Amino acid sequence: MDMVERYVPILNWGRRYSRDKFGRDFLAAVIVTIMLIPQSLAYALLAGLPPEVGLYASILPLVAYGVFGSSTSLAVGPVAVVSLMTAAAIGRIAQEGTADYASAAIVLALLSGGILTLMGLFRLGFIANFLSHPVISGFITASGLIIATSQVGGLLGISSTGHAMPELLASLAGHLEQFNPYTFAVGAASLAALVWVRTGMKGMLVSVGLPSTIATLAVRAAPVVVVLLAIAASAAFDLGTKGVALVGEVPQGIPLLSLPDLDLDIVSALIVPAFIISIVGFVESISVAQTLAAKKRERIDPDQELVGLGAANIASAFGSGFPVTGGFARSVVNHDAGAATPAAGMFTAVGIALATLLLTPFLALLPKATLAATIVVAVLALVDFSILKKSWSYSKADFAAVATTLAGTLIFGVETGISLGVAASVLVFFYRSSRPHMAIVGRVPGTEHFRNINRHDVRTDPHILALRVDESLYFANARYLEERIAREISGRPGITQVILMCPAVNAIDMSALESLEAINIRLKEQGIGLNLSEVKGPVMDRLKRSDFLDHLNGRVFLSHHDAVDALSVSLVP
Amino acid sequence: MDMVERYVPILNWGRRYSRDKFGRDFLAAVIVTIMLIPQSLAYALLAGLPPEVGLYASILPLVAYGVFGSSTSLAVGPVAVVSLMTAAAIGRIAQEGTADYASAAIVLALLSGGILTLMGLFRLGFIANFLSHPVISGFITASGLIIATSQVGGLLGISSTGHAMPELLASLAGHLEQFNPYTFAVGAASLAALVWVRTGMKGMLVSVGLPSTIATLAVRAAPVVVVLLAIAASAAFDLGTKGVALVGEVPQGIPLLSLPDLDLDIVSALIVPAFIISIVGFVESISVAQTLAAKKRERIDPDQELVGLGAANIASAFGSGFPVTGGFARSVVNHDAGAATPAAGMFTAVGIALATLLLTPFLALLPKATLAATIVVAVLALVDFSILKKSWSYSKADFAAVATTLAGTLIFGVETGISLGVAASVLVFFYRSSRPHMAIVGRVPGTEHFRNINRHDVRTDPHILALRVDESLYFANARYLEERIAREISGRPGITQVILMCPAVNAIDMSALESLEAINIRLKEQGIGLNLSEVKGPVMDRLKRSDFLDHLNGRVFLSHHDAVDALSVSLVP
Repeated sequence: MDMVERYVPILNWGRRYSRDKFGRDFLAAVIVTIMLIPQSLAYALLAGLPPEVGLYASILPLVAYGVFGSSTSLAVGPVAVVSLMTAAAIGRIAQEGTADYASAAIVLALLSGGILTLMGLFRLGFIANFLSHPVISGFITASGLIIATSQVGGLLGISSTGHAMPELLASLAGHLEQFNPYTFAVGAASLAALVWVRTGMKGMLVSVGLPSTIATLAVRAAPVVVVLLAIAASAAFDLGTKGVALVGEVPQGIPLLSLPDLDLDIVSALIVPAFIISIVGFVESISVAQTLAAKKRERIDPDQELVGLGAANIASAFGSGFPVTGGFARSVVNHDAGAATPAAGMFTAVGIALATLLLTPFLALLPKATLAATIVVAVLALVDFSILKKSWSYSKADFAAVATTLAGTLIFGVETGISLGVAASVLVFFYRSSRPHMAIVGRVPGTEHFRNINRHDVRTDPHILALRVDESLYFANARYLEERIAREISGRPGITQVILMCPAVNAIDMSALESLEAINIRLKEQGIGLNLSEVKGPVMDRLKRSDFLDHLNGRVFLSHHDAVDALSVSLVP
Repeated sequence: MDMVERYVPILNWGRRYSRDKFGRDFLAAVIVTIMLIPQSLAYALLAGLPPEVGLYASILPLVAYGVFGSSTSLAVGPVAVVSLMTAAAIGRIAQEGTADYASAAIVLALLSGGILTLMGLFRLGFIANFLSHPVISGFITASGLIIATSQVGGLLGISSTGHAMPELLASLAGHLEQFNPYTFAVGAASLAALVWVRTGMKGMLVSVGLPSTIATLAVRAAPVVVVLLAIAASAAFDLGTKGVALVGEVPQGIPLLSLPDLDLDIVSALIVPAFIISIVGFVESISVAQTLAAKKRERIDPDQELVGLGAANIASAFGSGFPVTGGFARSVVNHDAGAATPAAGMFTAVGIALATLLLTPFLALLPKATLAATIVVAVLALVDFSILKKSWSYSKADFAAVATTLAGTLIFGVETGISLGVAASVLVFFYRSSRPHMAIVGRVPGTEHFRNINRHDVRTDPHILALRVDESLYFANARYLEERIAREISGRPGITQVILMCPAVNAIDMSALESLEAINIRLKEQGIGLNLSEVKGPVMDRLKRSDFLDHLNGRVFLSHHDAVDALSVSLVP
């Protein structure tokens, strides 16, 4: 029972559900629903799918997350970056607007859900660690720029294709003659209205006397009003006949429990993108979930979050949707509105279902330019170049990872960009630790302390090479250790003892062990002893499991002072 | 001038060349030449090339290494593992026995040489660190098994194809009806003779009164005698007419300075294999070079070794050869025979050139089964399963890397196998460091020492969470730190101060910095201070370059004792 509860958190919090919590969850759900309607329509468009698919992806996934998720604040649904990644992935294997395209999106959601769930069950969340902060920052900024650029065509009435900058810009430049003044008017008006909603509306409402809470609510509902106004304008001025692209007829009702069509070719083409989307979606989601959990002094279980997001994506597949994850802005709104349990998301699902039934008849008249404006306003908040400056001043290695990810994503698109970023951060990490800091140490006169001979006035014994290793020893730096000791020895014929001082060596892996064995043999052939001092407990435990210590041509000393005392033949105290 | 000498070591040692050194180098060269003749023929066969190509690859490359190499002991030429990798790489794009196949081998050598040289000039030798000891051990053992199996057909007169176990075994099983008793007789006799040469010959010679040194020389010359005997038997019994595969007619002379034919398709198909071959060849070569250098109290420069091996491979391409590297057994023989400078390799090249001119007329009659036996005897020395047991007892993580490499190479072949091995060792490394050891610490009563509360009887303050971090903080464990602190805090409502004790934190990267910032903000919202103690100098220098310390809701203390003293409100001293 404990096991079941662990993987199905609703069994735990559901039992203690109360009228008070219901009230808070219900209010939060109403606000999130109103916020989610235009967003879900817009992100479906961004993914290259019909707008109503965005609504579908905001129903079942929220219910599934409510059952399996562990965050009491996370609001799941379509998000901008994942929608762009979806478009990039399925755009390679199907033509936008076809049934194959929509069904590929469903397969992608199913694969992503399966991958997330398996990662959660096998506790493989650590894989997400490969996405370092610099890589994520660079990736999100680049994605925001690509998304905004991809919507410029929609605002001007120009058709454009591509999921990376060079292709997008060339496509826009090549279709400038399609410019439509009516589309531009709708797009610019929508953009202006949405920007004002974000920047000026609350202040104005408060200044005319509305309470701040009411003003905040009004701001959150305003994008829906913009959508409704755009529909009204479209009807009043018959914009469809003037060349303004409209959403067009959409099917009525909600397609419940469709069965994904699993073709092996499509699955193998989408498995890698599904993996990358899963990791990116998880990382985005977990960071907002952790931040919001901390505000409530709660904690979330990352492995359970994988299961929750996995279930949400599998549900999205069965509900004719596309990949979803926890949205940042939306989760903050959910939290601020007082959401107490994952039930808030389930009520949001009900709200979106009702909206789907009521709204679809009107959607036909909605200008796509309004949705493009919604996307642009949302994603510009993602663009943040400050990470470039910050990482430059903190560490050139991290800057290299940011710059590689940013440039790679802009030029080559999302999957290649993030892969280059991960490769860069792993390479940079190994490069940095491949030449660890090591210092030759000597005794501070009259003490038992030993310090770097280059920084302190210390005494050394000409027969002893005492080298402090300031890093764990493992495959990336094992060979460097061999080289370094060979270099120090080759210049000093008087040396008869080497002491490796290991207080900062947190681990020694098999590669480093074999290097130590090679060093030991080589030194022995030169008549030089190899000794260790201040080896940490866990490291020593492991060394004892090998036969290294049996063959060591020297000793292991608890303190470096003991080592020097025992081995010294001429040290002046 | 200093710069030129750095990259062209012959300018340095050549100036101090002496009659004594000449004598030593010449003797070593004679012995290595005799050893290299059958090996170079056999390894060419293993690479799927005509035997004489092995001789070509043992002439110019040795001269080039002599000019650019830094090891005084390394003997360069065709080696077993690199020959197998060559066959696997070019077998995909050309049919064995065709002109395209031979020219692809030349392109592969040229690419490999270019990659090695560039890595040397740009000091990128650290890339080789990705090949951890466990990965190399697993790879060499698996390669030895594949090579031995690939020669079984040659010993029995059965044709077989494939560069991985499943394909090889299926191919052998499918052609059993080709079994030829004459071929088997030649193969078995050659194998028995060569095994006896390795195991029993020296003892017998010594027991009949020969001096040990003479006996050793005889053992080294014996394989050439086996080859000559096989040729004699082939002629005497007219084995060619009895279905025994012979080497056949080979062109006379030495093709000097052929120009590689660079086709863009072939280059792009071979660039990745060339990279992998370069790294594997370099790692094999550098480890024997370092071991032998240490015996002479010399040291070799890994970056210069890259240049030396790069020059050798470029020379191999221009001399109609195939990829080469430093051979283990051969270099040991070179060293033991007294080689004093890289000139020994140049003299060996002269020896092989003479042998090529004198030997080729006889090669036509040499049974291929004898070369197969030469290969089998050589590679079985590579097979060593003890690494499995050793790594299992030392560290399960390293065992996983060995097992992945071994199984991956046997099943999928050399390139996939080694790639899986590298991926496994990188993943395992990040997995291990993704959950670093952290200990809650308390004061040892009456002292200024702080120890793990789970291992020692120590005093703690209920308002303070003091966590010692036993690992550098970077992207792989940054999120774990966030989770760990959230977990510790969520169970203890009384805590008002967190102290991270950092004596073992050798570095904090940007990801960890951002995690610390997030932790700081989350703790602040809960009314909890965040403090650091015993931060290392270089880490502190870096933190000062960010604005983390400006926003830190707490202080940085030099010693943990100071921190607890300053923050404690109820500690009983």
